[in-house]
Amino acid sequence: MNIQHSVMIGMMGKVADKFHEYHPGKDLLERLRDAKKVKGADGIEVVYPSEFSNLNESVRIIKDSGLPLSALNLNVKSQKHWEKGSFTNPDPAIRAQAVESMHIAMDLAAELGADMVSCCPLIDGHNFNFEVNYLDQWAWLEEGIKKGASYRQDIKVSLEYKLNESRNANILADMGRSLYLCERIGLPNLGVTMDVGHAIMARETPAEVMCIASLSNRLYYVHFNDNDRYWDWDMLPGSVNLWDMLETLYYLEKLNWNGWFSYDIVVRDGDIVDTMASAIANVKIGQKLIKKIGIEKIDDLIENKSSGDTFQTLMEAFL
Amino acid sequence: MNIQHSVMIGMMGKVADKFHEYHPGKDLLERLRDAKKVKGADGIEVVYPSEFSNLNESVRIIKDSGLPLSALNLNVKSQKHWEKGSFTNPDPAIRAQAVESMHIAMDLAAELGADMVSCCPLIDGHNFNFEVNYLDQWAWLEEGIKKGASYRQDIKVSLEYKLNESRNANILADMGRSLYLCERIGLPNLGVTMDVGHAIMARETPAEVMCIASLSNRLYYVHFNDNDRYWDWDMLPGSVNLWDMLETLYYLEKLNWNGWFSYDIVVRDGDIVDTMASAIANVKIGQKLIKKIGIEKIDDLIENKSSGDTFQTLMEAFL
Amino acid sequence: MNIQHSVMIGMMGKVADKFHEYHPGKDLLERLRDAKKVKGADGIEVVYPSEFSNLNESVRIIKDSGLPLSALNLNVKSQKHWEKGSFTNPDPAIRAQAVESMHIAMDLAAELGADMVSCCPLIDGHNFNFEVNYLDQWAWLEEGIKKGASYRQDIKVSLEYKLNESRNANILADMGRSLYLCERIGLPNLGVTMDVGHAIMARETPAEVMCIASLSNRLYYVHFNDNDRYWDWDMLPGSVNLWDMLETLYYLEKLNWNGWFSYDIVVRDGDIVDTMASAIANVKIGQKLIKKIGIEKIDDLIENKSSGDTFQTLMEAFL
Amino acid sequence: MNIQHSVMIGMMGKVADKFHEYHPGKDLLERLRDAKKVKGADGIEVVYPSEFSNLNESVRIIKDSGLPLSALNLNVKSQKHWEKGSFTNPDPAIRAQAVESMHIAMDLAAELGADMVSCCPLIDGHNFNFEVNYLDQWAWLEEGIKKGASYRQDIKVSLEYKLNESRNANILADMGRSLYLCERIGLPNLGVTMDVGHAIMARETPAEVMCIASLSNRLYYVHFNDNDRYWDWDMLPGSVNLWDMLETLYYLEKLNWNGWFSYDIVVRDGDIVDTMASAIANVKIGQKLIKKIGIEKIDDLIENKSSGDTFQTLMEAFL
Repeated sequence: MNIQHSVMIGMMGKVADKFHEYHPGKDLLERLRDAKKVKGADGIEVVYPSEFSNLNESVRIIKDSGLPLSALNLNVKSQKHWEKGSFTNPDPAIRAQAVESMHIAMDLAAELGADMVSCCPLIDGHNFNFEVNYLDQWAWLEEGIKKGASYRQDIKVSLEYKLNESRNANILADMGRSLYLCERIGLPNLGVTMDVGHAIMARETPAEVMCIASLSNRLYYVHFNDNDRYWDWDMLPGSVNLWDMLETLYYLEKLNWNGWFSYDIVVRDGDIVDTMASAIANVKIGQKLIKKIGIEKIDDLIENKSSGDTFQTLMEAFL
Repeated sequence: MNIQHSVMIGMMGKVADKFHEYHPGKDLLERLRDAKKVKGADGIEVVYPSEFSNLNESVRIIKDSGLPLSALNLNVKSQKHWEKGSFTNPDPAIRAQAVESMHIAMDLAAELGADMVSCCPLIDGHNFNFEVNYLDQWAWLEEGIKKGASYRQDIKVSLEYKLNESRNANILADMGRSLYLCERIGLPNLGVTMDVGHAIMARETPAEVMCIASLSNRLYYVHFNDNDRYWDWDMLPGSVNLWDMLETLYYLEKLNWNGWFSYDIVVRDGDIVDTMASAIANVKIGQKLIKKIGIEKIDDLIENKSSGDTFQTLMEAFL
Repeated sequence: MNIQHSVMIGMMGKVADKFHEYHPGKDLLERLRDAKKVKGADGIEVVYPSEFSNLNESVRIIKDSGLPLSALNLNVKSQKHWEKGSFTNPDPAIRAQAVESMHIAMDLAAELGADMVSCCPLIDGHNFNFEVNYLDQWAWLEEGIKKGASYRQDIKVSLEYKLNESRNANILADMGRSLYLCERIGLPNLGVTMDVGHAIMARETPAEVMCIASLSNRLYYVHFNDNDRYWDWDMLPGSVNLWDMLETLYYLEKLNWNGWFSYDIVVRDGDIVDTMASAIANVKIGQKLIKKIGIEKIDDLIENKSSGDTFQTLMEAFL
Repeated sequence: MNIQHSVMIGMMGKVADKFHEYHPGKDLLERLRDAKKVKGADGIEVVYPSEFSNLNESVRIIKDSGLPLSALNLNVKSQKHWEKGSFTNPDPAIRAQAVESMHIAMDLAAELGADMVSCCPLIDGHNFNFEVNYLDQWAWLEEGIKKGASYRQDIKVSLEYKLNESRNANILADMGRSLYLCERIGLPNLGVTMDVGHAIMARETPAEVMCIASLSNRLYYVHFNDNDRYWDWDMLPGSVNLWDMLETLYYLEKLNWNGWFSYDIVVRDGDIVDTMASAIANVKIGQKLIKKIGIEKIDDLIENKSSGDTFQTLMEAFL
């Protein structure tokens, strides 16, 4: 297993919720400099189009930073024209624009030396019963993602699911639906970005859905964070569901999975650079804890032991 | 749309929870007689093997009842040998037995004049982290269902998903994963039984996932009930989420869906025959309410109106 | 029962979430003018301090509007100094400031002709385990609210609970804890603002906790809205949990409760004035539906009928 | 802090769910012998009336066992006459019987050398809207518990709350409501049994509500187990929410709380005696982990450190 750790450039500046601004905004250059200071970081994730208001300038700055790109994140939700949906917008012109955005993002990813565009269609869904036409929405989603991802096969398109956020109910809600969409579309460069927190809030066992996706080679990318199983608080990895974190790391080791973890963490207290370093550190400690317990020992617990034996053994290993 | 209403013969006798037996057990014959008394019922759903300890006798009794079968329900969870799983049991002999059970059930369905076996693999999953091998489990599920359902193509196999029950986390948890499984296996006679309550507790919008399944012709069968979005209480249709019920009926009308509704209702108070009749009555009232509002009016609300207009219009229709 | 309907002035202008601004900001005067256009509105709820940057000017404008105040809403969360908590801030100077704010708000309410300050201590709680001292927090909350509310007895202080929002877990999380706090403090002018959506997301049955609060005369004020039982989406009354809405109205009628409903509704589509009018209209339609079914009929359903009879009767009433 | 560990005698025999019997029934004598074999156990919790069909015989057997009683558990839910409620049964004769049962249980506790009756009114609540009269229910609960607990002041009555189980919604749902009830009744021998799993499924932070109860000396007794925050699966302590377990132990240490932990664990795999020993072992390991990290270190993390620092420090302590 070779896991590389990526810093989301978008999380390194302004952090705000409905009531407070916890950290001030910073320009791209400053945030790239800060990203380099994050202990354990191997690269960055950058959002298109928000970081590319001046495209050439941003490309140059990012290249100059020398930081490799884990993925280009395509945002099709925040701009005004997406307000009623992107890939499932009732207006065919807007849907075409979503497809076009994906093409641009794929080219830009290639230009920046990345092999992947990650995209969370977070404005596609509904708020109320009797608000949208579900038959149209799903058909449009299949059609749009297909048109988008088939543009070039050397760049992977990785879809990130989430139960809800800007819409009370998102159309790409969970791992099952995401894999079904991939299977329906059938492109070899289409897969899934699994945000651990999104899995947890969708009542999935993260390690389980990771395994299911891996079996068809569709686990492309991982966003690591944690929450209380109800809402996507973007908390530190392992800070709530430690066993889920350890189990996830155990299976990725078993699968000999190679890829990037990126950290969707909202830092409301403490320094951002330090906290991002702690997020990465927690995962690395998790990997050490797995080694401390022992992969073969865990194999044995799963295969042969009762839950009582297993958890006493696991907890004793922490002493 | 032509919806037929089926009585679950298994719900017509003993009803008990951890603390109380609310209704006493009754033999098959008595329950079939009671099923005939359920106002609005067009047929029955029968469970194999529990109702077939004496196979020939039970076949005869059911045929004699004159009640058509909506589906044969294959139970691969309650018998002692399923305790550690059926289609995903670590023991290959038990897994083979699950496949064999499906073949028997398919033949029996045909014998009883039904075209469908419905099966909820409710003992396949896990309780704790580090308890099962997820890679094996999913591979076994794909393999077993494929071997089972490919036995004969004139009988549909309809898989019922559920987030949890006997296992804290079931492997066939939600609609997305069910459709993904169907797509992976690729058989033309494989589809989904959607229990409305299971959809609701998996945080799905029932009408939405119904539509997604319908788009690939995989919505085979519907179990209708309701709950509080947290636990599968098997409550009366519409008794909690009335708008979801109405929206579901609206889309089935739009889809001109033909098929059976069966009623997975736990009757803890009142008479069983009367309560099952009320369950069916609620759905029929729902259909009338949709007509009272008007299909075209609803089309217009969805396409053109704001949420404020929509819900005021819908509620005013009840006055 | 005499229910009056109040428009939250704060909801009449800018509406935005993490991704979009759905409606632009408007000054107080404009919003007061709009509030007058809301069909069915009898008064307004105004937030202190946000609407009072120029105190005298705002008081004058509000008085001039001729709109009665249902309550003055004291916000002790949004300003920078509340970032680490208000009544439970580790800094005693900030805690004193929270108490002082309540005194000012009580005087201001009186000045504006209202008899109530409603306050939701939404920044008091915690995000992570091992982040705050729970013993201190609760002691400080009791002490602060007591000091605040005992300032003058002619103005009621009504506490609004919520499971979470700016903090992942709020200290004043549910109705039980709110009533316990009131009982511990023991002031005759201390009670509860029940936001129906907050009750629903705390897994309470709104009508039940309303009744419990009413039995000790502590139900002071109601914010009416709805959601999916998981997150406080501030949806239209009755748009998800219609039966809960009707049951609530039935009990308030039985209790002959007199007071104000205010509407914490986030309008992301459609016109704000129209949507607020629909929110009020929905409640009024609910009251008519209760009358259509009949109070005595409902008494009889509760006392004598099975769930099957009850829901068939209720649904038939909508035909 | 002095925590003693109690074995629930009722969990030592038959373990069954809807589908399987995982362990066979055993008579009281056998289960008491097994309880003695549970490593780390200091005493037992026994249920009245189920273990006392022959009162004198059972009293003798329990006394002869030499195992001290942590508490006598009063069950007012399982017998046929409780089917429609115990303390809130519409029939005054049944309500009187619930009160009488509590008196008997208090005398029996004294006779068995215990100072506490623990009671979870798990059949009091509702399943549907419009099913019960909430005003009556709460008044009856207050009245019944007062009459019950005021019988003798030398025996504590400890009320256990739970969101739901046999009723879809229990009246004694959460810690806040339980403390409110205690405060309303105002008896010095009335307090709360906190089942950690019940706290978690009610979306409480266990350590927080423990602290709130402790501040008024109402934390009488603890049932320790764990779950997925949605349903009371009665899992091993720390097997899901390890940080909550550690935080709980930290605060009990700070409070210098003395009392009993009892283990409401459903053992579906492995040997019961061994698994109960693991449950106790997990808590003891938890206490050692708190010491390994250091109480003063944790004080410092809470008071002075950011979430990033805190969780990195906590996790590093496990290496």
